[in-house]
Amino acid sequence: MKAFMNADLLLPDACSRRLFHDYAAEMPIIDYHCHLPPADIAADTCFRDLAHAWLGGDHYKWRAMRANGVAEEDITGHPADYHTFLAWARTVPKLAGNPLYHWTHLELQRYFGIDAPLSEKTAPMIWEACNALLVKPEFGARALLRKMKVKAVGTTDDPADTLEHHRAYARARQPGEPVMAPSYRPDKALAVEDPAAWKAYLGKLAAAADVAIDSYKDLVAALQKRHDAFHELGCRASDHALLAPIASFVSEQALEGLFAKFIAGAVPLPEEAEAFKTALLLEIGRMNARRGWAMQLHLAALRNLNTAMFARLGPDTGYDAIADRPIAEKLALFLDALQVDKLLPKTILYSLNPNDLEVLCTIMGCFQDGSIPGKLQSGSAWWFNDHIEGMRQQMVCLANIGLLSRFVGMLTDSRSFLSFPRHEYFRRILCALVGGWMEAGEIPADFDTFGAMVRDISYNNAKNYFAIPGVED
Amino acid sequence: MKAFMNADLLLPDACSRRLFHDYAAEMPIIDYHCHLPPADIAADTCFRDLAHAWLGGDHYKWRAMRANGVAEEDITGHPADYHTFLAWARTVPKLAGNPLYHWTHLELQRYFGIDAPLSEKTAPMIWEACNALLVKPEFGARALLRKMKVKAVGTTDDPADTLEHHRAYARARQPGEPVMAPSYRPDKALAVEDPAAWKAYLGKLAAAADVAIDSYKDLVAALQKRHDAFHELGCRASDHALLAPIASFVSEQALEGLFAKFIAGAVPLPEEAEAFKTALLLEIGRMNARRGWAMQLHLAALRNLNTAMFARLGPDTGYDAIADRPIAEKLALFLDALQVDKLLPKTILYSLNPNDLEVLCTIMGCFQDGSIPGKLQSGSAWWFNDHIEGMRQQMVCLANIGLLSRFVGMLTDSRSFLSFPRHEYFRRILCALVGGWMEAGEIPADFDTFGAMVRDISYNNAKNYFAIPGVED
Amino acid sequence: MKAFMNADLLLPDACSRRLFHDYAAEMPIIDYHCHLPPADIAADTCFRDLAHAWLGGDHYKWRAMRANGVAEEDITGHPADYHTFLAWARTVPKLAGNPLYHWTHLELQRYFGIDAPLSEKTAPMIWEACNALLVKPEFGARALLRKMKVKAVGTTDDPADTLEHHRAYARARQPGEPVMAPSYRPDKALAVEDPAAWKAYLGKLAAAADVAIDSYKDLVAALQKRHDAFHELGCRASDHALLAPIASFVSEQALEGLFAKFIAGAVPLPEEAEAFKTALLLEIGRMNARRGWAMQLHLAALRNLNTAMFARLGPDTGYDAIADRPIAEKLALFLDALQVDKLLPKTILYSLNPNDLEVLCTIMGCFQDGSIPGKLQSGSAWWFNDHIEGMRQQMVCLANIGLLSRFVGMLTDSRSFLSFPRHEYFRRILCALVGGWMEAGEIPADFDTFGAMVRDISYNNAKNYFAIPGVED
Repeated sequence: MKAFMNADLLLPDACSRRLFHDYAAEMPIIDYHCHLPPADIAADTCFRDLAHAWLGGDHYKWRAMRANGVAEEDITGHPADYHTFLAWARTVPKLAGNPLYHWTHLELQRYFGIDAPLSEKTAPMIWEACNALLVKPEFGARALLRKMKVKAVGTTDDPADTLEHHRAYARARQPGEPVMAPSYRPDKALAVEDPAAWKAYLGKLAAAADVAIDSYKDLVAALQKRHDAFHELGCRASDHALLAPIASFVSEQALEGLFAKFIAGAVPLPEEAEAFKTALLLEIGRMNARRGWAMQLHLAALRNLNTAMFARLGPDTGYDAIADRPIAEKLALFLDALQVDKLLPKTILYSLNPNDLEVLCTIMGCFQDGSIPGKLQSGSAWWFNDHIEGMRQQMVCLANIGLLSRFVGMLTDSRSFLSFPRHEYFRRILCALVGGWMEAGEIPADFDTFGAMVRDISYNNAKNYFAIPGVED
Repeated sequence: MKAFMNADLLLPDACSRRLFHDYAAEMPIIDYHCHLPPADIAADTCFRDLAHAWLGGDHYKWRAMRANGVAEEDITGHPADYHTFLAWARTVPKLAGNPLYHWTHLELQRYFGIDAPLSEKTAPMIWEACNALLVKPEFGARALLRKMKVKAVGTTDDPADTLEHHRAYARARQPGEPVMAPSYRPDKALAVEDPAAWKAYLGKLAAAADVAIDSYKDLVAALQKRHDAFHELGCRASDHALLAPIASFVSEQALEGLFAKFIAGAVPLPEEAEAFKTALLLEIGRMNARRGWAMQLHLAALRNLNTAMFARLGPDTGYDAIADRPIAEKLALFLDALQVDKLLPKTILYSLNPNDLEVLCTIMGCFQDGSIPGKLQSGSAWWFNDHIEGMRQQMVCLANIGLLSRFVGMLTDSRSFLSFPRHEYFRRILCALVGGWMEAGEIPADFDTFGAMVRDISYNNAKNYFAIPGVED
Repeated sequence: MKAFMNADLLLPDACSRRLFHDYAAEMPIIDYHCHLPPADIAADTCFRDLAHAWLGGDHYKWRAMRANGVAEEDITGHPADYHTFLAWARTVPKLAGNPLYHWTHLELQRYFGIDAPLSEKTAPMIWEACNALLVKPEFGARALLRKMKVKAVGTTDDPADTLEHHRAYARARQPGEPVMAPSYRPDKALAVEDPAAWKAYLGKLAAAADVAIDSYKDLVAALQKRHDAFHELGCRASDHALLAPIASFVSEQALEGLFAKFIAGAVPLPEEAEAFKTALLLEIGRMNARRGWAMQLHLAALRNLNTAMFARLGPDTGYDAIADRPIAEKLALFLDALQVDKLLPKTILYSLNPNDLEVLCTIMGCFQDGSIPGKLQSGSAWWFNDHIEGMRQQMVCLANIGLLSRFVGMLTDSRSFLSFPRHEYFRRILCALVGGWMEAGEIPADFDTFGAMVRDISYNNAKNYFAIPGVED
């Protein structure tokens, strides 16, 4: 029996241990897609206490507590405090088998040097010990990133955002501190289903771009101008949330008609919304292709399913789920529409539905054009799939249908500065997979070749793929 | 090499063995959803012989024999006898890898003390040995349940049923004998697609409820009255078979119009049927919420696909399959419609399609409200998924996305009094999973905590969740 | 650590090794569905060199090279030569985890006696060594088949094909040489979506059948006449590619109307195409049933998704993917339409979408009629699923829901004469599965029974199921 979460966690054999300890562990991190608040990095924020750090906004943990019978009042009813922490501590032992169980203990081990499992019993000791550390400067936002050898983070930003924090940090950044690159996420520009909110958003976008938006063409121009500004600040990727792929193609004239209709406040028919959004997303795809950016498509998230709780807490509070619409045909049509113009950018496909893995891997194979290795990517297991089985399945599927060796690897997708051990977790799973092949004689015991492969997936592939300016080894 | 189906079946390591033998094995059983005939329990029926017990109505075995090339005449052409048994005995060795193979041998071992694998060669010996036992009083229906430490069974009953056998058994039940609680399954009240059959059914329901049913409102009232009567007899759960989730919302007035139309014999349009069924199922959900019952939704079964055999043998004869319609959006809408009124009952979600596991686990997470642990449940692997991989996948999915520790666990869903070793089978798989985590250091070797978790999933969670009256430890 | 791809590849324990080496390994091969060119077998073609043999038409390898960043010019820009081979050799080490990695090395080991892993470094040596062998007579098409103990191959042929090569080979075939049976693949007769191409095809079919095709009835008659001719030449199976199941039933009169419409050049509405194709496919199903043939349905392939590359390279060049439409309901209706007339033939169901496995296995169970064991079959893992996990999942699903022991087993589906070690690969996975059950005590250590089962799945089941004339043990 192995000791609880020791140095060889998830590494069942000699080959996987050697691959992890001698090759993967030392590699730095490029966290190319996350939701860290740029303001916190710019201001080098410290956390008040462990409740603040862990429970202030983490809807993964909120969901787990609700399922464990913790009343909402004790979860989001007041700012996270010791009572919130205690409710969490009571929940953790009930989470065996859930990635939160491992994340929690990895964070305690790696950041705070605490090996004891969290429970109601250990809660007071852990609370004291962690809080004593959290207020120290080496637990500020930037120091936490440095500690994990983070070379770059890709935040998630609206084109209407001024990027003031990115600008401020770019000026202030010291040698050895991570690069903070924005990512371009124009979801609100496509959200025509609510014409009033959309119109209000266009006002903000117009202001940020300093462009009047009176037509579809103007909207594209404003988005292009922000695309340029994002590029200047190191952005090398866009990101798009889509319930399902969109692929409905209409004329420029029809698009102008739709623009006029929506801006006048008319609620679009579903096919109108799809046509408008398809056109706009194709435009952004083309912008990306011209600039060498990657386009990330996040598919199949159903959001805000609990009407009462949405009214009370708003979005991103733990009321989202996996969608299950068919995706193959429209996704292929969308990518093909870019490909025929030779303007298909590097593209990363994520689906929240794990059943889509094989479909995604085969579709992406239809658009690999030999221009760069792994131009189209299967995104790492995302959100509800970000656990041992999910990560393993994504890698096995990619290996079976594509080239695992060209995979750009892990991202945290997280709002928390303490999430970076997830990269280590991912690397352990990767090394167990590849090491297992070695042990079984399915690949040669060639550590030069496969150690390099593990290093590539841990870091080098993402570095080369995104080519974020300022990242140095 | 381990001996065939020995004491450590499915338990590959020391931790899983300890969890099973020292914690899980001794726990009693609450079989909260099965299809045992109430009359047999009330009458304490004995079986004529092993053919009667095993092959009289088990369409799982019939399917297996058909696939093995056994002629229908020898399966259902006459009452099950030695020839039927022999056809089954010849089929069993061909079933390696199928749960029927293990169920058959577990039943021979646990009830009859026979360790020999069943085959054409051993058939005569096993036939004689089992038949000699089956006629004894300790092989009567109730004794078979007691032998397996069954504390309660939840039968499946129509609201139009008089529950006479439940009443009789409640009066006659001796200390130590299992509680028999009805479950409320009003599928026929929703089956408006065949208006003539539906109308006939309403006549039966009206009689049972002693309520004239001349309107939608009357129908709800009759169902409520039966709900009350079922509650009196210990019912704490309803059960509903749905090809796919339904979520179409219309006015009370429109519902009365639909009622009038259907009762007059008009075949409903699909959208009419959906609206009517949605409303009725919401009503039952509200009844459940007010009474503290659980609502079980069984999704994605396609039934009676073979027209010729349906004409010959009727339903539940082995001609059903897994459906694959998208389910996420409507299921979420249905649950939300109950939730907005604060009348979402405890709910257990089952889908016959194993691809739905992740969708179900994420949707249920959106409606956990902290009122009780595990208010919404992912149902144990059902029917075609009730095998090692299926059970393991359901538990791993639940662990990854929800809280395995709060799982109400196994049910047989069976028509047979000999099916109860399936609980043992389930517990072995559970202990192998949790024990495997311990062996790998993924959880601490804390048998107090995780032994208790295994006991909870084996018994305590179901006991607390359903709170069937009369169940004592 | 096991040596790279040694004799015990994929065989992790003593039972699986014994099952493979003592039972499975020696069995001959019936490759009942492949795409070998009949002309090459008739002419006993030799390969120019390893580039020709491996890279002349293998779109699996082309896809892998594109994903690895090899320019199209170096893949299909000129006839495959040493430079193409070198691009492939550089790609192979990047393919760890992909079945191409194992297939490549199995082919080097089994045909050429080369144990060194292929890489840029070993490429010159391997190129020389293989080419020196390929020109020898023992590397001619027929000798390659004999070397692998291939007893029969089922090629894939259009009803309009003259089958001249089949006829020539049947006359010339020497004792010990494999039988070459055609398979009947009438996809083009159903392809009414492009009326001009369809009309041209009907001309070819009319010529081959020597029947004027002026009506739907004529078309059926022509197809029947070719069915008869194929039967004469040993054909015992048809094969059909369907994006999704079809089940729309109209009158004979309506079909004649549709025929007239399409032959006049009108593009069909989707529902018209479905009705026409359903009727025609049912006719072929009935022909098969009367003749005792098997019907193979290949579902869920999306083809030619990259418009630009289709224009440049045509079909079957690596631009296909997995579809994800629901399939259950229509597939059941289609099979039932044959079953009600007692004209459902032996049927093998393949889906390119691995999520469909459980649906297929449950639907096929609804139509097993006891006439022969395993009348309906779950096809072996196909194309993008033809890898360790895919094959294992298909077998586990079949075992759980049906009868693994009645499985007709592996087929290469390949265009290459060097693909036959895939049968060995399949058998290793099969033996690991069954051997694993033995090791764990899940089945008895009864090598007579389970060795026979492994032999049946490797060869005997296919021999008996297809009953291709001329196959002798």
